[in-house]
Amino acid sequence: MNDAAALALAYARAHRRRSLAELEQFVRFPSISAQPRHAEDVKRCAHWLANQLRRTGLDDVSVIATRRHPLVHAAWHGAAGRPTVLIYGHYDVQPVDPLGEWHSPPFAPTVRGQDLFGRGACDDKGQMFAHLKALQAYLQTRHALPVNVKCLFEGEEEIGSPNLVPFVAHNQKALAADVAVMSDTRMLAPDRPALNYAERGALYLELEFRGLAQDLHSGNFGGAVHNPLQALCEIVAALHDADGRIAIPGFYANVRRWGRDERARMARTGPSDRQILRDARVEEGWGESGYTLYERLTIRPALTVNGLTGGYQGPGGKGVIPARALAKLSFRLVPDQDPRDIDRLFRAHIARIVPSTMRATVRTLSSAKPALVDPKHPAMAAAALAYRKGFGAAPVLLRSGGTIPILNTFQEMLGIPTVLMGFALPDDRIHAPNEKFHLPNFYNGIETCIWFLAAIGAGQNLIRDVRHRQGQPVSVAA
Amino acid sequence: MNDAAALALAYARAHRRRSLAELEQFVRFPSISAQPRHAEDVKRCAHWLANQLRRTGLDDVSVIATRRHPLVHAAWHGAAGRPTVLIYGHYDVQPVDPLGEWHSPPFAPTVRGQDLFGRGACDDKGQMFAHLKALQAYLQTRHALPVNVKCLFEGEEEIGSPNLVPFVAHNQKALAADVAVMSDTRMLAPDRPALNYAERGALYLELEFRGLAQDLHSGNFGGAVHNPLQALCEIVAALHDADGRIAIPGFYANVRRWGRDERARMARTGPSDRQILRDARVEEGWGESGYTLYERLTIRPALTVNGLTGGYQGPGGKGVIPARALAKLSFRLVPDQDPRDIDRLFRAHIARIVPSTMRATVRTLSSAKPALVDPKHPAMAAAALAYRKGFGAAPVLLRSGGTIPILNTFQEMLGIPTVLMGFALPDDRIHAPNEKFHLPNFYNGIETCIWFLAAIGAGQNLIRDVRHRQGQPVSVAA
Repeated sequence: MNDAAALALAYARAHRRRSLAELEQFVRFPSISAQPRHAEDVKRCAHWLANQLRRTGLDDVSVIATRRHPLVHAAWHGAAGRPTVLIYGHYDVQPVDPLGEWHSPPFAPTVRGQDLFGRGACDDKGQMFAHLKALQAYLQTRHALPVNVKCLFEGEEEIGSPNLVPFVAHNQKALAADVAVMSDTRMLAPDRPALNYAERGALYLELEFRGLAQDLHSGNFGGAVHNPLQALCEIVAALHDADGRIAIPGFYANVRRWGRDERARMARTGPSDRQILRDARVEEGWGESGYTLYERLTIRPALTVNGLTGGYQGPGGKGVIPARALAKLSFRLVPDQDPRDIDRLFRAHIARIVPSTMRATVRTLSSAKPALVDPKHPAMAAAALAYRKGFGAAPVLLRSGGTIPILNTFQEMLGIPTVLMGFALPDDRIHAPNEKFHLPNFYNGIETCIWFLAAIGAGQNLIRDVRHRQGQPVSVAA
Repeated sequence: MNDAAALALAYARAHRRRSLAELEQFVRFPSISAQPRHAEDVKRCAHWLANQLRRTGLDDVSVIATRRHPLVHAAWHGAAGRPTVLIYGHYDVQPVDPLGEWHSPPFAPTVRGQDLFGRGACDDKGQMFAHLKALQAYLQTRHALPVNVKCLFEGEEEIGSPNLVPFVAHNQKALAADVAVMSDTRMLAPDRPALNYAERGALYLELEFRGLAQDLHSGNFGGAVHNPLQALCEIVAALHDADGRIAIPGFYANVRRWGRDERARMARTGPSDRQILRDARVEEGWGESGYTLYERLTIRPALTVNGLTGGYQGPGGKGVIPARALAKLSFRLVPDQDPRDIDRLFRAHIARIVPSTMRATVRTLSSAKPALVDPKHPAMAAAALAYRKGFGAAPVLLRSGGTIPILNTFQEMLGIPTVLMGFALPDDRIHAPNEKFHLPNFYNGIETCIWFLAAIGAGQNLIRDVRHRQGQPVSVAA
């Protein structure tokens, strides 16, 4: 097996240039899942990905239509008696605005220094592609993998995975595996890998205020009618109290309190306030008093105004009182908060505080529960070994402030943990202009994936149930 | 003279269809002064207007370039010994967004029922065009006007007349007149004309908050850094107190207090709260306690959030903390507030309350002083007579909540009052989608303008200084 890994590593190193060229092809697709006008681009990207999987040497490759964006599935079942690894990733990307702030076009991938710039270069095309290149390295040298593999790549992660959850629910047997792995999280630095064992949940909402039948002239009516933009500002401002806490009654009721030990361990292994401020490129922190910035980002919930719009936004001024105003809000949730409860609390609170001059509408866009992975699971040890080999350093155990909707789904529906073996860096600017992927992390990431599969293949204690390794066809039921 | 007016009236009535067709041509120009991409449209509109003035029979027609949008000037000096009337209007229009709410395209003028729909149909193309048609009716029948006339039409009223003020300052002799008249204000109803004698001033500002070097991921940083959108909401919310008053120290220091008599007169002649709510199509008023809605709109200042923008505004959600947020604000000011003082107070207040996490930038877009016209001026009597003839009803004396920047300029630089002889209706939706002009008001407005010129021509007590009537060439000095 070490022979196989060594051959695969040699292959991967010899083909770095080609791997980069293919990743650039991948990034070129504007597969923005949130924007309907890009639906066809998302689909084309899925088919390109399926072709890559076929050329990699995987079997059962299929593009599976859903109500919106397709899933891509593949499998390889040649390692009888060995564990099965479910590799998850997403090929959809975030919107690109504000477009003017990109130094090179978001879908014209560009290498500057040691970085590949482009929307999705890091989140998640580059990171998931490292797994494909690892599979290819084995299959092109020994025509075999050290484990059985199932791949499940979705095109809706950035819109909350609305169709993946029902798909997994309807295909639990076909997706059965011993462990899942995904790479969509951050390391601390190029030489400091990290294994995330906790993700926050999320709840995305729209809050719209309508106060007028139509826009009004601010000269003729300014001072005598309530302005929806002003009313929305007042309500948004009132959603936090002076201590940076979310001012919704009952919001903190189910937030788990962590003991002194866990907080001390977090202080030891996690990033310092200074590190987080440097990553964010701000001079001053903000938020709930009584917690470190790392704690605020991981074991404490947050509410962010992601967007706000209303009235005139062109050059110069316009004397208008706009008829309506809209805010896009998102909560990050922690154990044991349930997004459905928070949704209810938010709606009840808005109904209670909306001024009588306004009609408020709340729309729920997406939600995901918070998730935890047991740090003692043997697959975590395999990942730690793989990082040591791939990056020359042992990973630290970290909590993340982000959200991976599928984590909880895999735990609840497939009964398996997910190893979060991320290769992103804090300054990769995911979701922002000038997103990039650090190319040394791409190449080391491929090697880490090679070692991870080898380590999982060597450890038999992962196998839970022989029936799971039977290659059952995946049905279209999303 | 009554003969001349009678002939002019007959001519105007016989040519209503053609007048409407020409007004539709006028409205077809997308002469949006605020938007640089429409600069050429503004210019084309100016030249079309100049051609109309030439065909009307006026002399000295010229399009005068400024730093931005041109002025159109014309004159007729054939009424020796008679007063000179300066007719002012503006051919630029407001932006059209939100475009989706128009029932017909804003620049495809459309007659539905008794109304002409289109951006600028009322504000101010339709109203100023009534004056042109009145001049034409005299000049095409008797080849003479009952008074000397100067026309001054600008293309920058909706952006605060930045070049008109220096132009008037440099051409005081050439623009000398006995009285100015303009039609850019509202009547109470089709059978209830109004003569405005007070306008509020205005101060348009942009307030930008920058808190981050770039957009951040709200999962990775939400809860630990201050969000510029949230900070801006907090500051905007804090600009009013719970009593609807503007919470800027010193803001009310120079607001003139009106006595019981004036407030009683306003209550008698002005619109009721109920009328204002009906015009605004809202069920409930808002604003500074202790004042009627009419008072809040006229003798009390106001602060309106005209627009607010920041972060993601597309479909669905996006997990972003935006790097910056921008609000467009406008004050409406009353005697004896000076926009320069308010600008200073606002900047000082923002500097005082901006959180340490944010960098605030204030940009002044435009400003205009509040203005008052003496209701006892003889030209006001001429206008009242004209309304009685044109609309069959005496006008009420009203204050307006809007702003006409040039009013103060004419008073201070030319030493003349301006008669605000408006033909708009409260439901004309100026500045908003589906702006319209009520066609009976267009036709009655033309007749009112005919009577106004006749009445001014008959009254010699207006003439202040014979030198004013010498036709001095207008120089290009804007």
